[in-house]
Amino acid sequence: MRGDKFIESLKDGRSVWLEGATVSDLREHPAFKGTLDTIRSLFNLLDNPEEREKVGYLVPGQNRYAHSSFLIPYSAEDLQKRHEAFSCWSQQTHGMMSRLSDYARSLVTGWYAARHEIARYDTGFAAKISSYYEHARDGDLFLTTAIIDPQIDRSSGLEDSRIAERFLHIVKETSEGIVIRGAKMIATGAPYTHDFVIFSFLKFSAEQKKHAHVLLVPANSKGLHIVCRESFADSHEQNHILSSRYEEMDAVLFFDDVFVPWERVLLHGDTEKVLSLRANRTANGLAFHQNIVRYVAKLEFVAGVAFAVAESIGADGFLHVQEKLGELLTQIDVMKALVLASETKAKRNENGVLVPELSYIDTARNIGTRFYPRAIEILQQVGGGGFVQAPSGVEDFYGPISGLMHLYFEGASVSAEKKVQLYKLAWDLIGSPLGSRHELYERFYAGDPVRNYASQYVQFNKQALTDPVWRLVKDASKMGASTI
Amino acid sequence: MRGDKFIESLKDGRSVWLEGATVSDLREHPAFKGTLDTIRSLFNLLDNPEEREKVGYLVPGQNRYAHSSFLIPYSAEDLQKRHEAFSCWSQQTHGMMSRLSDYARSLVTGWYAARHEIARYDTGFAAKISSYYEHARDGDLFLTTAIIDPQIDRSSGLEDSRIAERFLHIVKETSEGIVIRGAKMIATGAPYTHDFVIFSFLKFSAEQKKHAHVLLVPANSKGLHIVCRESFADSHEQNHILSSRYEEMDAVLFFDDVFVPWERVLLHGDTEKVLSLRANRTANGLAFHQNIVRYVAKLEFVAGVAFAVAESIGADGFLHVQEKLGELLTQIDVMKALVLASETKAKRNENGVLVPELSYIDTARNIGTRFYPRAIEILQQVGGGGFVQAPSGVEDFYGPISGLMHLYFEGASVSAEKKVQLYKLAWDLIGSPLGSRHELYERFYAGDPVRNYASQYVQFNKQALTDPVWRLVKDASKMGASTI
Amino acid sequence: MRGDKFIESLKDGRSVWLEGATVSDLREHPAFKGTLDTIRSLFNLLDNPEEREKVGYLVPGQNRYAHSSFLIPYSAEDLQKRHEAFSCWSQQTHGMMSRLSDYARSLVTGWYAARHEIARYDTGFAAKISSYYEHARDGDLFLTTAIIDPQIDRSSGLEDSRIAERFLHIVKETSEGIVIRGAKMIATGAPYTHDFVIFSFLKFSAEQKKHAHVLLVPANSKGLHIVCRESFADSHEQNHILSSRYEEMDAVLFFDDVFVPWERVLLHGDTEKVLSLRANRTANGLAFHQNIVRYVAKLEFVAGVAFAVAESIGADGFLHVQEKLGELLTQIDVMKALVLASETKAKRNENGVLVPELSYIDTARNIGTRFYPRAIEILQQVGGGGFVQAPSGVEDFYGPISGLMHLYFEGASVSAEKKVQLYKLAWDLIGSPLGSRHELYERFYAGDPVRNYASQYVQFNKQALTDPVWRLVKDASKMGASTI
Amino acid sequence: MRGDKFIESLKDGRSVWLEGATVSDLREHPAFKGTLDTIRSLFNLLDNPEEREKVGYLVPGQNRYAHSSFLIPYSAEDLQKRHEAFSCWSQQTHGMMSRLSDYARSLVTGWYAARHEIARYDTGFAAKISSYYEHARDGDLFLTTAIIDPQIDRSSGLEDSRIAERFLHIVKETSEGIVIRGAKMIATGAPYTHDFVIFSFLKFSAEQKKHAHVLLVPANSKGLHIVCRESFADSHEQNHILSSRYEEMDAVLFFDDVFVPWERVLLHGDTEKVLSLRANRTANGLAFHQNIVRYVAKLEFVAGVAFAVAESIGADGFLHVQEKLGELLTQIDVMKALVLASETKAKRNENGVLVPELSYIDTARNIGTRFYPRAIEILQQVGGGGFVQAPSGVEDFYGPISGLMHLYFEGASVSAEKKVQLYKLAWDLIGSPLGSRHELYERFYAGDPVRNYASQYVQFNKQALTDPVWRLVKDASKMGASTI
Repeated sequence: MRGDKFIESLKDGRSVWLEGATVSDLREHPAFKGTLDTIRSLFNLLDNPEEREKVGYLVPGQNRYAHSSFLIPYSAEDLQKRHEAFSCWSQQTHGMMSRLSDYARSLVTGWYAARHEIARYDTGFAAKISSYYEHARDGDLFLTTAIIDPQIDRSSGLEDSRIAERFLHIVKETSEGIVIRGAKMIATGAPYTHDFVIFSFLKFSAEQKKHAHVLLVPANSKGLHIVCRESFADSHEQNHILSSRYEEMDAVLFFDDVFVPWERVLLHGDTEKVLSLRANRTANGLAFHQNIVRYVAKLEFVAGVAFAVAESIGADGFLHVQEKLGELLTQIDVMKALVLASETKAKRNENGVLVPELSYIDTARNIGTRFYPRAIEILQQVGGGGFVQAPSGVEDFYGPISGLMHLYFEGASVSAEKKVQLYKLAWDLIGSPLGSRHELYERFYAGDPVRNYASQYVQFNKQALTDPVWRLVKDASKMGASTI
Repeated sequence: MRGDKFIESLKDGRSVWLEGATVSDLREHPAFKGTLDTIRSLFNLLDNPEEREKVGYLVPGQNRYAHSSFLIPYSAEDLQKRHEAFSCWSQQTHGMMSRLSDYARSLVTGWYAARHEIARYDTGFAAKISSYYEHARDGDLFLTTAIIDPQIDRSSGLEDSRIAERFLHIVKETSEGIVIRGAKMIATGAPYTHDFVIFSFLKFSAEQKKHAHVLLVPANSKGLHIVCRESFADSHEQNHILSSRYEEMDAVLFFDDVFVPWERVLLHGDTEKVLSLRANRTANGLAFHQNIVRYVAKLEFVAGVAFAVAESIGADGFLHVQEKLGELLTQIDVMKALVLASETKAKRNENGVLVPELSYIDTARNIGTRFYPRAIEILQQVGGGGFVQAPSGVEDFYGPISGLMHLYFEGASVSAEKKVQLYKLAWDLIGSPLGSRHELYERFYAGDPVRNYASQYVQFNKQALTDPVWRLVKDASKMGASTI
Repeated sequence: MRGDKFIESLKDGRSVWLEGATVSDLREHPAFKGTLDTIRSLFNLLDNPEEREKVGYLVPGQNRYAHSSFLIPYSAEDLQKRHEAFSCWSQQTHGMMSRLSDYARSLVTGWYAARHEIARYDTGFAAKISSYYEHARDGDLFLTTAIIDPQIDRSSGLEDSRIAERFLHIVKETSEGIVIRGAKMIATGAPYTHDFVIFSFLKFSAEQKKHAHVLLVPANSKGLHIVCRESFADSHEQNHILSSRYEEMDAVLFFDDVFVPWERVLLHGDTEKVLSLRANRTANGLAFHQNIVRYVAKLEFVAGVAFAVAESIGADGFLHVQEKLGELLTQIDVMKALVLASETKAKRNENGVLVPELSYIDTARNIGTRFYPRAIEILQQVGGGGFVQAPSGVEDFYGPISGLMHLYFEGASVSAEKKVQLYKLAWDLIGSPLGSRHELYERFYAGDPVRNYASQYVQFNKQALTDPVWRLVKDASKMGASTI
Repeated sequence: MRGDKFIESLKDGRSVWLEGATVSDLREHPAFKGTLDTIRSLFNLLDNPEEREKVGYLVPGQNRYAHSSFLIPYSAEDLQKRHEAFSCWSQQTHGMMSRLSDYARSLVTGWYAARHEIARYDTGFAAKISSYYEHARDGDLFLTTAIIDPQIDRSSGLEDSRIAERFLHIVKETSEGIVIRGAKMIATGAPYTHDFVIFSFLKFSAEQKKHAHVLLVPANSKGLHIVCRESFADSHEQNHILSSRYEEMDAVLFFDDVFVPWERVLLHGDTEKVLSLRANRTANGLAFHQNIVRYVAKLEFVAGVAFAVAESIGADGFLHVQEKLGELLTQIDVMKALVLASETKAKRNENGVLVPELSYIDTARNIGTRFYPRAIEILQQVGGGGFVQAPSGVEDFYGPISGLMHLYFEGASVSAEKKVQLYKLAWDLIGSPLGSRHELYERFYAGDPVRNYASQYVQFNKQALTDPVWRLVKDASKMGASTI
């Protein structure tokens, strides 16, 4: 089974730091074990004849299924197949895991699908990405991205040497490859990845060649330190079911002179090329499509929890509560409609690959930064103070005060025990560190929302909307002329 | 030309009250003239061989075009044709006219398209609606709805006799028809309509039969008084281009014992039937589809004005302004995606009519109540105090201080005169009574938004979302059991 | 009576432009007449022995009352007297008039009260301001400010010659005085003023001397053109009571080489001095105090209208309506508390003048930009679509359909006629051009709210709040040390 | 020292349930130890000659200081002394502890201060409260309230027997006292309290006598179970300084036939009396005053953290960040102004006790439910994704990758280590369970905010605001009459 193989593969010498020491075996560590179990079962779906069509496709020319994030869509059905795979994993994890490799795999797939365009400005790219794509697909590689530069001083850029030396850059080139130094932050899923897909969001100037690159770096590279944040995993499943299963982990990566062989250096040293690749619509379309399919599952989960909570305490009949619960449904519909629109309006790239329409995806990602915090707020408003009344553990239901527990924690339509468990689940969503991290994640995973909203305006063809206005102004002006 | 024929047809004895007197000839009255010109030119499109395909379709078996709001959609292309017609009129009027007859025509078309279903609970309905549908389609009738009961005392309902006698009800039945008494409010477009489509949003109890009815009442019925609100039309096109063209007018209707012949009484006296008809998905799907196609045009217009204003004063380079302008684009994308989703997910009714999916439409109508006020707020924030600096009239540009006017009203990239005209257009949108009425309209045209949001929740199949939550709870509970 | 004298005084040769021509006599012009009546009655209060204590004080050494905006506060009672005068005029005008001269008079009073401080950096100032203060006080001068530079291109500053030549600047100095050229915008109350108090919000560099000045310019100066925006006055009192009385008017001022004698040139040519004067806490404290006292009256008025509307349609019993109406009360309380805090925490300047605390005033002005739009939104939500159902005029109550009018416009607890009149008043507040202008006014009268919020942060002594945080960090760090 | 005495006193046989068992010694349990240390040091202040004036007063006729929450204010100075004591404890705990006994002590003090009024409807009350007040004051009792009924089914009330038997009620009366049964929820600080102050927020009907009572129940009463929620305490001070010190704990109380002697039964069985006492302005004024003084400290703390974070990453220069940080300052000013206004406008009760004005306090409590979530949102927006990049522990700063840690976690103006510690502190505020619980607490501690806003409207004398509106309507109507 691929899941088991995956777990085995992680014992590869990677250097994962947690609480001042490296973790010798992720599989046994409470910070990682529950999540590994989750990933294993998702990976195993591909080996299950009854499930594999949901998440995978038969690789042409092979008698083997690969995950659909590797599928290059040439038809609406292909696109739908990708959607279905993203949706399946997301629903299984209630939208709480966003970096299950399907996003970064889609990026690689997109680059591969756009290799002919890219070949026009870089001749070496096509061969490298083709080889890597097949390697990743056939090896079921877990991939994640590491693209955010460390948060040293937001008022400075690469022109400041203090920044330049800390942001990831090439310090040496040899015939074998390059040596890189610097850091990346918020590499989600880092401890679980095989390779990091690495680039930067920076707008480089021409002189900043050393910082311009697109790389594929193995997680067990020598000199690469994966520095985890505090673990939000909780092994007490009954009290913290979400935290026990869905801790993706975020890490800062230190590259202490890490060697990357040439075949893993997709681009380097040419700022224009790097910027072009990053803006590639095929890759972004395929990858960001995963983001928003996943988001629907999360909104549905929050709504489901809010509905269940409202029902469990008999609050679902109040008009002002219903209004708020209705708003959760509008969020879901909006997000579903944007996914659908991105698919319905998908355009073919020059090689016939069908790419989801990015404007709808950008909008979905932008409003997503506001929807989730609002959804959580509504959940808070529905359950109110009750969220901090759940007893410390369900153990009390089996001890000396069992009778009182069943009596006083009873719900409107559910037993005390079920209600308490529901509230514990809800608290895991709104009050646990894992839950709190999700609010931050949805606000910021796509970058600074202020700049992203601004960017939608900047990139838009504004004349399409201002021309009719100026025509109307002209019209008014003519009519006026005749009246004077 | 149909536009001219339409205008002629309004001199039919109708009783339109304005400022204490009836208007003898709408065509010459400044409160109505500009709007009639607008409607004329929209109606004339159907007679223009180069334009008619955009707004009309060739009626099967006739050598004649009818407006596409009468088209019964059996295919995606048909639905698209309806969309295109709604869109064409909306763009021509910048989304500022919502009751140009296409909404009420669609309702009639929908009832006609669902007549076989309805026949199951009312045998007379099918013949009446068929006959009326053809009459309306072939006569290019202008239709509007009158469905809101007067705002007497919101804390009382029909059980209060004071309310019961003021809400529209049947006072007499004869062999020829019925006599009705009472009032309806906010009949938008009332002075311009041929017939009113009349029913109520009330939830009747079984005893309230006299108030349960669905009627088609001619505007020139004896005893029917169309009491207009203050006119927001402004004949000075140059200063108030929107107000000079797009004053739809809202009216209260008094039914002072109005006779309605049986063929215009679609339903009456059976509260269940009336409720069923009102909830008919075919009719609502076709009619509300028009609402949201129109809404897209309006959002695009406000965004266009905001973009032009920002450019004209050089404010389009500021990050916090760009963020707000980007938000306007997300509004447009969301609304377009919901329209698209309603069409893509359209379902056939039992007679094969393709009906846009209502859940997406409901969501669009609900979030629409929040989008427009926010769009107007952003427009205010972009132009700031400048909106009240436009000179009283452009006449000063041609008088003794002409030189100073050109100097001091200059914009970043536009001439003083164009900038002033743009600001006057913007003011007409955010500051004129017409503009203010639009903010109210978008907030409330679909009913009380609090209740409508609540209704989305109430009508939703909540178990689809709560089941996975309870399964997870059960899961957690099992895992816990093993650890105790 | 001073009111009559004031009205007389306006026939002084001023050049007020409206719709392409100058207005020969403001007193008879419908755009100004109603407002002049309002000002007259407010001015007359000072001559009414029963009222004058509310708005005025006995000038020491004179047997004559002056308006309390001229009172220099040395005690809490003095400050209260100023408060009372501001409050009296504001309540009489429902907070709808903000530039009734009391603001600009307070600025002059503040400069006078701070003349000893200012003398330290400019020796001529004290004599000039003393003389002018007495002149204004004893002549009951109507004053207004003109401080906003024209909105040409917000992305450019004075370093751009196109901007420099359009912003007000000195073009010549003679032994008699200076000659100024350029424009100012949004001079509220301009047609009614005797003198303009003029300066700029710009942050000058040292080279921009010609644009640095503080002036007192008579409204009837040769070469000064007062270019009005469209008039929002409406002479139909019954339909538009607010618009018939409270149209303050905003104007753009063109200075076409206007001569200003030296005694009216308070400062010029020294950018540092001008910046210092503008930041003078005594002047700003006294003047901005008026702003926020006035604001309370406006919030109370909007709340009063919303409460009356809710009662009139029986909506005051719904929980979600009550919640919104309660929010209006919290707005009032917050604003009253800020006024009170500014007074309670007033500090003496070096000459013993008691100056309201600016930090509370700044906060009040900043949150005021958000409160008013929200208050209007609540008013809209309470009355809903009903605001556009009021009949065009109350004339219908006296004509042939009088009976039906009384029947169908009836309210929950008020007669049809009173309800209609209330709704017309409410519409004047939320839907008329005058009402719309007020929303813009409250958002922007104090400048760009984004920058003003930012400015509160920039000017604040941040260490007072960060020190305890860093101490706690240090604490944690120590405790940690011991545990490692 | 009183702190030590307090800690000793808790070993009194109370039944505190945590994770399925009772806690035998709170003092040694990690869930309680840190908080007990905090309380100890606060209590000890009274015994410190240099500090005791800040938090205490010399009890008349005794040579002993009591905490100022017991001080009955007869003068502005007394009120200030109370303010100072609340403020001192709040600042020491950064506003993160709200139930440090000072609130409930103030309630008792208020009842005592109002005993003469209350005596008019209940003759026994005065003696009981006097005796208890002195007992509590002289014994330095820690008190907390238990007033929220369990969240069984919000759609039902006491008329439902399922509810009636679960809500706290009297099951027996004897000559010695009463026996009570039922539950209370969200008793904050329960494990630390000596006595619970108990009543209900319900609006009783006359038949519901058994549920109407006001009681003072010792925490170690037989049959009383204190059922704690999950502990949010964290003993790792360096990573979780707030959670290590400020875990107040919330508990559900089960009253399994608890006996309460008559002297602790302040009122019972008379629904009117209970309602009157609960609405007593003296008690509420003194107690709620503590709430809002505490709130200021919390807002200042959040602002301090946000400012420090912005500075540490060089984000404090961006306009849109400054705008948000400025908003935090307006929150503080508003809250301070409301506290000040409640004190400045304090009114004497009939016995001369100076009671802070409740309308300002109600407003402060209501807007407080919105301010804190917004403050936390701003903090999130300022730090962005950085909050999840802090390393798992600061231990890495002392191990093999120490050099890289110092290099890559560096801040704009602070060392890597300080920045990481600051971020950990911030995370404890926004991301830890303790932090999340605080957002819920501020939203709901004062009850359902929807109902509380509504209640401000319901209780307000609306005519004061509507009268001027109706006068203006009348005015308009008269003026109109003359024009017709």
